[in-house]
Amino acid sequence: MGNALKQVAVVGSTGSIGRQTLEVISALPDRFRIIGLAAGKNTDLLARQINQFQPRFVHYQSTKAPPRLSHTEYEFLSPEEIASHPQVDIVVMATSGKWGLSPTLAAVKAGKKIALANKESLVMAGEIITNEAKLNGAQILPIDSEHSAIWQCLEGENQKVTRLILTASGGPFHHYSPAQLSKVTVDQALRHPSWRMGRKVTIDSATLMNKGLEVIEAHWLFDIPVDNIKVLIHPQSIVHSMVEFIDGSIKAQLSYPDMRLPIQYALSYPERLANPQLPRLNWEGIKKLTFEPPDLDTFPCLKLAMEAGREGETYPAVLCAADEVAVDLFLSQGIKFTDIARLVGQALEEHQAISHPTLEEIMAVDNWAREKVVQLVGGDKP
Amino acid sequence: MGNALKQVAVVGSTGSIGRQTLEVISALPDRFRIIGLAAGKNTDLLARQINQFQPRFVHYQSTKAPPRLSHTEYEFLSPEEIASHPQVDIVVMATSGKWGLSPTLAAVKAGKKIALANKESLVMAGEIITNEAKLNGAQILPIDSEHSAIWQCLEGENQKVTRLILTASGGPFHHYSPAQLSKVTVDQALRHPSWRMGRKVTIDSATLMNKGLEVIEAHWLFDIPVDNIKVLIHPQSIVHSMVEFIDGSIKAQLSYPDMRLPIQYALSYPERLANPQLPRLNWEGIKKLTFEPPDLDTFPCLKLAMEAGREGETYPAVLCAADEVAVDLFLSQGIKFTDIARLVGQALEEHQAISHPTLEEIMAVDNWAREKVVQLVGGDKP
Repeated sequence: MGNALKQVAVVGSTGSIGRQTLEVISALPDRFRIIGLAAGKNTDLLARQINQFQPRFVHYQSTKAPPRLSHTEYEFLSPEEIASHPQVDIVVMATSGKWGLSPTLAAVKAGKKIALANKESLVMAGEIITNEAKLNGAQILPIDSEHSAIWQCLEGENQKVTRLILTASGGPFHHYSPAQLSKVTVDQALRHPSWRMGRKVTIDSATLMNKGLEVIEAHWLFDIPVDNIKVLIHPQSIVHSMVEFIDGSIKAQLSYPDMRLPIQYALSYPERLANPQLPRLNWEGIKKLTFEPPDLDTFPCLKLAMEAGREGETYPAVLCAADEVAVDLFLSQGIKFTDIARLVGQALEEHQAISHPTLEEIMAVDNWAREKVVQLVGGDKP
Repeated sequence: MGNALKQVAVVGSTGSIGRQTLEVISALPDRFRIIGLAAGKNTDLLARQINQFQPRFVHYQSTKAPPRLSHTEYEFLSPEEIASHPQVDIVVMATSGKWGLSPTLAAVKAGKKIALANKESLVMAGEIITNEAKLNGAQILPIDSEHSAIWQCLEGENQKVTRLILTASGGPFHHYSPAQLSKVTVDQALRHPSWRMGRKVTIDSATLMNKGLEVIEAHWLFDIPVDNIKVLIHPQSIVHSMVEFIDGSIKAQLSYPDMRLPIQYALSYPERLANPQLPRLNWEGIKKLTFEPPDLDTFPCLKLAMEAGREGETYPAVLCAADEVAVDLFLSQGIKFTDIARLVGQALEEHQAISHPTLEEIMAVDNWAREKVVQLVGGDKP
């Protein structure tokens, strides 16, 4: 096509974002080539991905090597080595949780373009990552639909922003009472009304913690104070977020809820590419778009996250770690849905924050928060 | 403020857009200075504007000179001379109807920045104006809220556009039946639910002719085929228009319906400026935004305009002229509301179109269409 082929590495290739990244890349073989794939324990799927995309660099966490790889040769590298490899043009950070932090930092230090879906790395270590990105000329390209929307709305606008407006679907329990919420099951919480996502993010969407993490992420990505970031519940998930400028004008980005669009935008930026996989909005089917403020009393995770974001220091790291353990406990049916916010809140309350933490301090805080939650439920570390 | 003061001329300063332009300029005296004012017959208001803004160049159509001008000296020039004067940085074309065409063309030939509210000039002579603009390095900056929205959404997007989506409030008669429409009064038609505008534009909004003219205007401004421009009825008038890109992503621009924002954006472009006059959207008051396709059978003016836009040649000039006369006749209570579309339709049907018309041919067609409408109602020229 006369355009340079971009060499893409995907860290977390077997998760939801990783799989959708590979769908986008399959649809645009003239533009992108997979050079590295890093996965966790799902080596069956990884094996199929390796056979299809023939990456040069591979990583997996399982001690069991991927099966059926007779025809394929690859070099086994760590996620950090893949993310920072000189042959990689762009790294998709598609792992969820704190496992994304170390490869993200490696990519940032190598001055890469990083298509970032892993919000925890910015929430936990936003100051370190944004500073290192500036130092090393790395570019962080958001993949979250909300941040992609904001990024798209800011394109070409070298203007003062007065407010970011992050939309939230409200999740499956929108308009539930606290009493109803205390009784919801794992199955109910995993049934998201508009998005297909991984299990952790789906639960975080149901508690609105996900939106809180996104507020903190937006604060770092766009250098906007947490107090200038507003959240609106928008159950149709069509308006993905908005930017308000100094003259009162607002720009919004709209599309069906489909992660392949923000993934592709980050990969193709500054171009936009036609892709028949990506649906065009059918306005005949969209009668109305509704907006309402979130109920912070019923969904305290959002409030906790905004407070942690406002305070900064190591509070967001505690928020992340405590939430990760609490969501695990909920998924394994050890605690109630409403216990997630309670446990995160208690961990935050007991935390002694550290200003301008080093990475080691952040990891120590992460450990402390995980142990704290386990201790609060009176169990062993999950 | 360290920024250059822009010298602004307003052609049509006593009309609705002209007055709102002067409100914006009053609020930003460090950025803009009025150098020229051209008006029609409202010399009382013009006199007050002259006293307040002390322009160097003035025009009025009345034979009665503006009163109370003892302290002010100005040069009397034609609208064309004002619009093309070397001291003018930006011309606001705020007249409605065909009177805007000649000064717009003068400004275009002088390579000016033209903040264009007069849609008729592009509808009637889009080919000539856009060609002359290219030849002379003139910039046409739209002031219509819809075109400003599209322009804002295109900013920084050097991308393929698949579709423009123009929103329409639907006017005061949204959901009326043809039988109800045939009985509406002038007073009812002048009561627009969301916008404050001049009389002609308000009637055109009620017939949806205004949206049709905007489709043709958008076609010329953004070089998009009429068939790739979609109209949606959006009664809240918050989303002012949208752009769909090649990857399926849509950008929208939102604000309260207030012409001062698009006026200011055209004046301040490429900057955005803070202006306490301009309201910020209060999301607590906005519960829902609705969208539905227009009813082309009940509001045939939109259909006629889209057909005229698609055909091109001199059809849009006939559309404009016939509509102007028909609206005048309706306002003077000579015809029914539904006669407007009927008369415009008949004029279009009887027209012998001319390809790539010259300005003289366009003016001849304009005359023909005006006389045709008068002849159709069996009266004298209004």
